[in-house]
Amino acid sequence: MADERKLTPRGEDFAAWYNEVVLRAELADYSPVRGSMVIRPWGYGIWENMQAALDRRFKDTGHENAYFPLLIPMNFIEKEKAHVEGFKPELAVVTHAGGKELEESLVIRPTSETVVYHMYAKWVQSYRDLPVLMNQWANVMRWELRTRLFLRTAEFLWQEGHTAHVSSEEAEQETQLILGLYREFMESWIAMPVLTGLKTESEKFAGAVRSYSCEALMQDNRALQAGTSHFLGQNFSKQFDLKFQSVEGKDEYAWNTSWGVSTRMVGGMVMTHGDDQGIVVPPRLAPVQVVIVPIIKGGDAKATAIHHKAEELAGMLTAQHVRVKVDRRDHLSPGAKFYEWERKGVPFRLELGPKDLDKEQVVLVQRVAPHDGPRKEFLSHVHATTMLPERLEEFQRELLANAVRRREDNSFRGITDWGEMKEILDTQGGFVYTGWSGDPAVEQRAKEEMKATIRVIPGEEFQSGTDPVRCIGGSGASRMEVVWARAY
Amino acid sequence: MADERKLTPRGEDFAAWYNEVVLRAELADYSPVRGSMVIRPWGYGIWENMQAALDRRFKDTGHENAYFPLLIPMNFIEKEKAHVEGFKPELAVVTHAGGKELEESLVIRPTSETVVYHMYAKWVQSYRDLPVLMNQWANVMRWELRTRLFLRTAEFLWQEGHTAHVSSEEAEQETQLILGLYREFMESWIAMPVLTGLKTESEKFAGAVRSYSCEALMQDNRALQAGTSHFLGQNFSKQFDLKFQSVEGKDEYAWNTSWGVSTRMVGGMVMTHGDDQGIVVPPRLAPVQVVIVPIIKGGDAKATAIHHKAEELAGMLTAQHVRVKVDRRDHLSPGAKFYEWERKGVPFRLELGPKDLDKEQVVLVQRVAPHDGPRKEFLSHVHATTMLPERLEEFQRELLANAVRRREDNSFRGITDWGEMKEILDTQGGFVYTGWSGDPAVEQRAKEEMKATIRVIPGEEFQSGTDPVRCIGGSGASRMEVVWARAY
Repeated sequence: MADERKLTPRGEDFAAWYNEVVLRAELADYSPVRGSMVIRPWGYGIWENMQAALDRRFKDTGHENAYFPLLIPMNFIEKEKAHVEGFKPELAVVTHAGGKELEESLVIRPTSETVVYHMYAKWVQSYRDLPVLMNQWANVMRWELRTRLFLRTAEFLWQEGHTAHVSSEEAEQETQLILGLYREFMESWIAMPVLTGLKTESEKFAGAVRSYSCEALMQDNRALQAGTSHFLGQNFSKQFDLKFQSVEGKDEYAWNTSWGVSTRMVGGMVMTHGDDQGIVVPPRLAPVQVVIVPIIKGGDAKATAIHHKAEELAGMLTAQHVRVKVDRRDHLSPGAKFYEWERKGVPFRLELGPKDLDKEQVVLVQRVAPHDGPRKEFLSHVHATTMLPERLEEFQRELLANAVRRREDNSFRGITDWGEMKEILDTQGGFVYTGWSGDPAVEQRAKEEMKATIRVIPGEEFQSGTDPVRCIGGSGASRMEVVWARAY
Repeated sequence: MADERKLTPRGEDFAAWYNEVVLRAELADYSPVRGSMVIRPWGYGIWENMQAALDRRFKDTGHENAYFPLLIPMNFIEKEKAHVEGFKPELAVVTHAGGKELEESLVIRPTSETVVYHMYAKWVQSYRDLPVLMNQWANVMRWELRTRLFLRTAEFLWQEGHTAHVSSEEAEQETQLILGLYREFMESWIAMPVLTGLKTESEKFAGAVRSYSCEALMQDNRALQAGTSHFLGQNFSKQFDLKFQSVEGKDEYAWNTSWGVSTRMVGGMVMTHGDDQGIVVPPRLAPVQVVIVPIIKGGDAKATAIHHKAEELAGMLTAQHVRVKVDRRDHLSPGAKFYEWERKGVPFRLELGPKDLDKEQVVLVQRVAPHDGPRKEFLSHVHATTMLPERLEEFQRELLANAVRRREDNSFRGITDWGEMKEILDTQGGFVYTGWSGDPAVEQRAKEEMKATIRVIPGEEFQSGTDPVRCIGGSGASRMEVVWARAY
């Protein structure tokens, strides 16, 4: 049966829209285990495309994949003081296995720093063994009370990179390299612009010296932390005895970084581009980039010719590396199919009916109307198939431009007044740029009074200027500009 | 430091050789959690190549990837009677999470039939929703007492396919399709020949109606079950209420299959091709197919020219899609490098020294001597680089031919005498073909007296003939030929 119920409009209830669209685009479903979700093929196909693009980037920058154990001894987690404080409340614990109670409980990894650096300590002896640049694609578990599909689930899929270096400088460079790689990926593949920069002390990763983050602005004007890259200093290497002999023959502790992005990015994609008809999948991520819908009315004599032509067009597109599907289901009307593929966010649809066949034309429909033209075009077969690769790239760029424009429309710079910041966040949300003295009491007060946090101390390229600005929530001026928002 | 210790020879202690070679080829390492291993980049790279080849085959045959939860409610596992009997002793159980004791314990998936069919029951209403053809790449956990790297570990990586069909016939076809796909993959990629066919009742999957298996013969003449494909009938659909409305409008239970292969195949590769120098990685699986070792003696004036030429040759090979690496490490002698790459099983090595440079030649060394030529050849630069893609394929074929020959040399057909079977299995092992009446008591006796099991009732293509043969361990003759072996 075709599901033709309308979605709750975003403007009415964004959270309800999000849940409905994720379920009805068949990205994911609730599972019988509280807090865990099932990623359905359409959602998983998008994740696979994200994985492939990121994996290529990791390998091109010298990283190798490996796999570390799911279960971690409880005493490992307890070694790094800040780490255990951050993660202990969220652990899932295995107490029994093989029919017996375990002598020491094991936890399902919430992240793998501890076991990874324990292993690196076995493998690294000399500066010649460094850097170690590894990544793993894995599932992790953080027992959350309030979960949202993709955005916050007990189990999620991610990649976690873990590196070890001879010097602080080299580790810091790696942290920055990955932050830049994440940003480039998010912009060019998810078409989701992100601000990058430092997290404040109160928001950094449990166990890091410094955390960097990618922050995107969703359509409801709340921020989404889409990826993080951490400079861990020697916090873990000291606890796990990860030492190396330096060029000078001295024993030194290695310098570490860790970094990760997760299936949460699928939620970011949904909330960046979706509309009241459904999700919109940027072409580079779409498992199906073009769907061809043959328009056949009951007993149409031209049915065979139409199907034949549809397959021929599909073949021409496949030859150009376009991911194409012909929707031949005969129990659904063309309208029901249009509705379904729009909900699922397929970038382009080609309609092909009896009249189109005679005129050697097709109807090309873009999922979102382009800025400078109609959503629907009549094109010759040859023209449609030859232009589509470029049209896909154009649509990809346009989605990014739209998202940048929306973010800029909802960014408020140079705010100096506490009341004004609260007014903005209470009424419309968005990114609020202010000066900040560095005083954590101001962060605490903002959290209490307006449920907002400093999302990021933006890197140079995002700074509004070089003049000191008046600090929010206090007196004096500062060169430190920060970005506030309510966040997922 | 280069590790130049010799491996224990296979002939002396095959099990010791296996462990040493897996560790010293850096395929994997022991982890701090009993029974779990760490897959190191060289081992994971091989697994990634296996994954890519299989994933392509699954998708080409209409399957889609998805992801189901790691944790499964205990009562799910208990629903299918045979299933719980088979898996309960091996479960790892989460009793606490988020700082509290759980109301119902959750188990880490030992396999996912239960939760998958629970979800399919939500998604499938009509025959139009069938078949459902899904696969997931995931980690699973079976608490084993005696573990071996790759071959039997508590946690392992695998793919598990789960399908639902309108009819028994269609499900049986799927089971066979996958069995054939596995066999073709194992032969053409791992260069590991396998017998395929049915498992007996006592050896089938807990919950299946019929299990099919791929059985390979290792160099110590023990069998390795390398992959299985199960026809589940309606066992799970009845427990999880997976029903559909048929074309005739009736409510019917769906027919299911499940099938999987795991990181165990890496162990199979090691025990099929390895020798006393190390592992041998078939070219299609090798993360590095050709290693170029520049031969430079201290302060050699030609060092720059040699490095330059090495990179040039590498570029020419990369352009032909050969995975190549130049080993530029300057703290290791060429001999130490040869030793290391042979241990890691890289198919070809190119040596390039000052004299070679003058003569515009390289030394090409194949990991294993070809049948009809020397292991080492002097070739011109152009010749070496243009011929290597074909040489890699030749080596791939030769590895398969070698393995087939070895298996056939250790297959004993038409055995009818109990004492003779025991004599073969006690002294040399291998595959023993006999007739079998179908009596499980005979299986039980063989297990007790010679630690052997019926590995497989081979499919037609592997049958010795069509005449009835005398049954082993009993009287009478049977058309049912079976293959016995001691197994991993």
